[in-house]
Amino acid sequence: MSSLLSSSRVFALTLSFLTIQALAQEDLEHAVRKRISPQRLREFLAEVSKEPHVAGSEANERLAGYLKKQFEAHGLETELATYDVLLSYPEDAALELLKPKQRVLLSLEGERLGNVETLTREERLPWNAYSPSAEITGQVVYANFGRPEDFQTLENLGIDVRGKIVLTRYGQGYRGGKSLEAERRGAAAILFYSDPEQDGYVQGEILPKGPWGPPDHFQRGANVYDFIVPGDPLTPGWPSTDRAKRIKPEQSKILPKIPSLPLSYQDVWPVLEALQGPVVPKNWQGGLPFTYHIGPGPAELRMKVKNKLERRKIINVLGRLRGHEEPEKIVLVSSHHDAWTKGAMDDGIGTAAALELSRIFGELARHGQRPRRSLLFASWDAEEYTLTGSTEWGEEHASHLKTHAVALLNLDAYRWGKEFTGIAVPSLKPLVLQALAAVRDPLTGHPILEEWEKAALARGEKASIGILGSGSDYTVFLNHLGIPVVETMFTGVAGAYHSIYDDLSWVEKVDPGLKYVAAMSEIIAFMALRLADSEILPLDYVTYARDVLALLEELQKIHPPPSLNLSACMEAARSWEQQAMRWEANKNQPLSQKQKQCANAALMQVERKLLHEAGIPGRPWFKHLLYAPRPSYEALSLPGIREAVEAGNFKLAQEQAKILETALRRASAAQARTLYCLK
Amino acid sequence: MSSLLSSSRVFALTLSFLTIQALAQEDLEHAVRKRISPQRLREFLAEVSKEPHVAGSEANERLAGYLKKQFEAHGLETELATYDVLLSYPEDAALELLKPKQRVLLSLEGERLGNVETLTREERLPWNAYSPSAEITGQVVYANFGRPEDFQTLENLGIDVRGKIVLTRYGQGYRGGKSLEAERRGAAAILFYSDPEQDGYVQGEILPKGPWGPPDHFQRGANVYDFIVPGDPLTPGWPSTDRAKRIKPEQSKILPKIPSLPLSYQDVWPVLEALQGPVVPKNWQGGLPFTYHIGPGPAELRMKVKNKLERRKIINVLGRLRGHEEPEKIVLVSSHHDAWTKGAMDDGIGTAAALELSRIFGELARHGQRPRRSLLFASWDAEEYTLTGSTEWGEEHASHLKTHAVALLNLDAYRWGKEFTGIAVPSLKPLVLQALAAVRDPLTGHPILEEWEKAALARGEKASIGILGSGSDYTVFLNHLGIPVVETMFTGVAGAYHSIYDDLSWVEKVDPGLKYVAAMSEIIAFMALRLADSEILPLDYVTYARDVLALLEELQKIHPPPSLNLSACMEAARSWEQQAMRWEANKNQPLSQKQKQCANAALMQVERKLLHEAGIPGRPWFKHLLYAPRPSYEALSLPGIREAVEAGNFKLAQEQAKILETALRRASAAQARTLYCLK
Repeated sequence: MSSLLSSSRVFALTLSFLTIQALAQEDLEHAVRKRISPQRLREFLAEVSKEPHVAGSEANERLAGYLKKQFEAHGLETELATYDVLLSYPEDAALELLKPKQRVLLSLEGERLGNVETLTREERLPWNAYSPSAEITGQVVYANFGRPEDFQTLENLGIDVRGKIVLTRYGQGYRGGKSLEAERRGAAAILFYSDPEQDGYVQGEILPKGPWGPPDHFQRGANVYDFIVPGDPLTPGWPSTDRAKRIKPEQSKILPKIPSLPLSYQDVWPVLEALQGPVVPKNWQGGLPFTYHIGPGPAELRMKVKNKLERRKIINVLGRLRGHEEPEKIVLVSSHHDAWTKGAMDDGIGTAAALELSRIFGELARHGQRPRRSLLFASWDAEEYTLTGSTEWGEEHASHLKTHAVALLNLDAYRWGKEFTGIAVPSLKPLVLQALAAVRDPLTGHPILEEWEKAALARGEKASIGILGSGSDYTVFLNHLGIPVVETMFTGVAGAYHSIYDDLSWVEKVDPGLKYVAAMSEIIAFMALRLADSEILPLDYVTYARDVLALLEELQKIHPPPSLNLSACMEAARSWEQQAMRWEANKNQPLSQKQKQCANAALMQVERKLLHEAGIPGRPWFKHLLYAPRPSYEALSLPGIREAVEAGNFKLAQEQAKILETALRRASAAQARTLYCLK
Repeated sequence: MSSLLSSSRVFALTLSFLTIQALAQEDLEHAVRKRISPQRLREFLAEVSKEPHVAGSEANERLAGYLKKQFEAHGLETELATYDVLLSYPEDAALELLKPKQRVLLSLEGERLGNVETLTREERLPWNAYSPSAEITGQVVYANFGRPEDFQTLENLGIDVRGKIVLTRYGQGYRGGKSLEAERRGAAAILFYSDPEQDGYVQGEILPKGPWGPPDHFQRGANVYDFIVPGDPLTPGWPSTDRAKRIKPEQSKILPKIPSLPLSYQDVWPVLEALQGPVVPKNWQGGLPFTYHIGPGPAELRMKVKNKLERRKIINVLGRLRGHEEPEKIVLVSSHHDAWTKGAMDDGIGTAAALELSRIFGELARHGQRPRRSLLFASWDAEEYTLTGSTEWGEEHASHLKTHAVALLNLDAYRWGKEFTGIAVPSLKPLVLQALAAVRDPLTGHPILEEWEKAALARGEKASIGILGSGSDYTVFLNHLGIPVVETMFTGVAGAYHSIYDDLSWVEKVDPGLKYVAAMSEIIAFMALRLADSEILPLDYVTYARDVLALLEELQKIHPPPSLNLSACMEAARSWEQQAMRWEANKNQPLSQKQKQCANAALMQVERKLLHEAGIPGRPWFKHLLYAPRPSYEALSLPGIREAVEAGNFKLAQEQAKILETALRRASAAQARTLYCLK
């Protein structure tokens, strides 16, 4: 067991004595927030993004060492959690247009940066981690975003993608989902490119003038099917410790069978312009200045991908600030330190925020101001591959975490902008709104809540906290372990995402003075403190039960009985809601310390009850019955029932409904335990 | 008085005798529709679009002569109605980018057609009729579509257009409306261009491969404020006959004071690319491959416009097929024969359809099959200027038309495609739907009604007949005279609109075999026959009254009392609805010929009652109280009230409501007269 996860009662009691005169929670919150320094955030960010640091590289190992040292210097207890996992690296890549006119493609990215000679191979080459090596010659078919519905459109048009090189644009979902769909339909290879409509001059000023993607930028990234099961491909479902059993790469269900390459719009231009065949359907047209055609051909490409799979060591860095009252209970603050390039945005921002917050919490702790429960700053490795570091760690410490983890705040602010976006389990929604009401927009000075609602209104929408899909380190905690999760971001600009342009200068272009990075740190500090220091945990299950009820009602409306009968599920959700309301009505009465701890322990177990040990059909690792990612990483609610319904299997859907009903009754019973604590 | 408008009772009786054994209406309809020949439509279209024929040109006079001869050959009584009106022609045009880099613009349109040497000056030069001559040097400001809200956005951004050359893209309304707004805000000049997003590669395949606008095409057209008062600028509100009083051009309210030029996206490219200043707001970005900026400057242009104003003769061609029972009653079938270039689409299609229909009606009439009322085929001149020919003729024969015109069917199918679009007064909506149910889509064989509803549904909309704005020859009849109007089109593709590419080959590209032209002729034939041959006129005032009520309720909801009180108007509309329902309930009882004629005369007067002699505020020529065009030509319902409300003048709005109430009561009383006929 990780030493940081074992609690020491004696130590806790000592600390408890030291903090008898600790500030009230609001004062502590105020003390933390006012200490957040944009200047220091910038210094941390400069340090953690000074060189490229792909997972498994020496540079990334150096960075892990730096982070550990910093956490220690800030007064945290630290630990390195290493795993031996299967990663992937590029060796060579080439692309050549053969017809209708020969032309070598793949121009270098970042030439204007003037340092092309100094680039590492990982920086220089276009590559998708885990793409198999291959040399393929084939005609091109344009498949829009490469979503299932796009491939369906091609099929309806009588266009066969078998044996073809499918050209898809980035956007509307994770590249791995596109690849799996192309693979299933028999494509020979898939290309991803950044169309200027999604990330280029159509969106706004491009680099170097503005933050949007220039003609030569391309978006690296893993092409892997971790929406089936994330983590090390060789240890699906168990931790990749030294002596762990490992499957062979050929046995993995998540490694792609067709090769892929990410491309710039500069390189795709001549290919796309050479395509003939039908004009694209409405909404398939992108931002390049000609009418897009589907093909196949006459454009014909030869592509060469040479990647290697390698087992390497990855290093999670953990830093714990021990709580003074319930140190065994932990609130996780999560970010990742690996990156595709220098990764100032992804996820240098989250890493810098973790450093700045740990610095402040450490400083206050030294003055006896420390929260009731422990804060665990976790800087994961190899997030960019298969959410690897977090997944392996979560799998390793599953049982301990299920007992002691309060919640996880994820800081993977990968598309920086000025507009707030939040996703969370419903029990944490009120907490997010409180944070947004407390923290002010750096530019306008109004509460971020207000700006967020205004921006949504301007789009004719209602501001709301979304549900969780996948694509970041919260996945193992929510979907595998049933731990409440929230992820907050400022969004808007893609530009440098997974490209060589993701460096400090880019972040400063989007957020001069790092004011929004500081504001996000405040939001995290607010939520972390409420979770770590409130006497009663701020987990709102009335909201949760009502959200579930609404989801059920909505689905029932689309598929009314007798094809699908969700009334028992709804009844169970209502009973949970009733229990939760009773708790809310009683929780503010004077309670003994013991009563509070009893209630908190009960509250922590409610979300866990929404897991089903056998998982959802076809994906046993995904155990949460309310949420799962689609292959696009899009959040799928009621996944077991909904996927069955979408496949037209209403018998399976009804079985899944029965499983959900049981889980909801368990949650309701767990909820009721909060009330027994009051007796 | 026009000889065609005077009726001859004796002749009518003779004809009546001849048609004793005439076919029933349905048979006549069937006989007409089955005789429509796509091949003959193509021959007519080839003939009427064989050379460019701008209004006032010799070529257009030749065309008028041809049309007259054809109508005569088809057995119609014909007449030429000529007027002496102010037109405008180009003499020279030049455009030069001075900064940031000198470059002469204005490349030739249609070079790929390979006949540049043979072009007339009107074909060769970019020009807007009625633009004043000027030489202007100024910085450029990009103003999106040049709508009032676009200029407001510029103002909000602190960008002053005074003294600037405003660059606007075509779309979202009539160019004259854009020019007036630019003029009011102090711009020095306005440029219009066809952005590839609205008309170019973003929409689909461009010429010569597809029907969309190629880089060199530009959209000619008048820049004139005929939404204030249409027709000859020198005779606003009265017919421009030889001895008519004429104002001076300086006194006209509809001639623009700032110069303008229409441009191709090829010529605008370097100008727009050179603009700096703020990046454009969302939705202002067009389809050219760079980020658009607003300016002003550094792009600086020198533009030269040399146009001449000239009084010339225009010629409407009228052909009457005399009705056998009520020959003095006329159903107008309206198209225009003038064009900016060869005008195969605009409005060769309408002209060819008129020729084909007159041929068939004439042939059937020779065999004694002739409708009850007269059909008047009107081929207007100078529609492209200020709806000139139709307006002058309507003004000249106002009183006769108000007594005898049943309805007008307009055939100005200026943006050809495959999707049906219809606009009509509400009393004619059911007739349009009947026609759409009867006529089949040439490609699918399903009723057009079905295809139309399906296409709307696919867009998430409900198929519906729109209301009438302006921009075609129906304006004088509806807005000045209160005659029921319907305009039907197939829409979808802009491409050749007002460009040199508007020739027969373009129409055949969009509609191979002219199948949709033939289908539209069938729709017109169906409606014309129902209007000309039904014993009881198919004017549905229940629908009309309900539409009015819905408009009133909608406006009342936005501006509830006490700021605006529309309850008296709604009461009047309800009373009209009641009367109309009573008529509908009784009209199918056995009626004598006299009773029918009495009822028809009453029905014809209902729409007239919706006119107000003083017109709407600021636009006395526009007398219809329910509809008027905005400067964009967009249809404005309840114009008097709505414009007052939009200006914040609720006192005026209430006065206008009072005027409308009176008109609705008059309509209700006219409606009630149908019932007196039954006694």
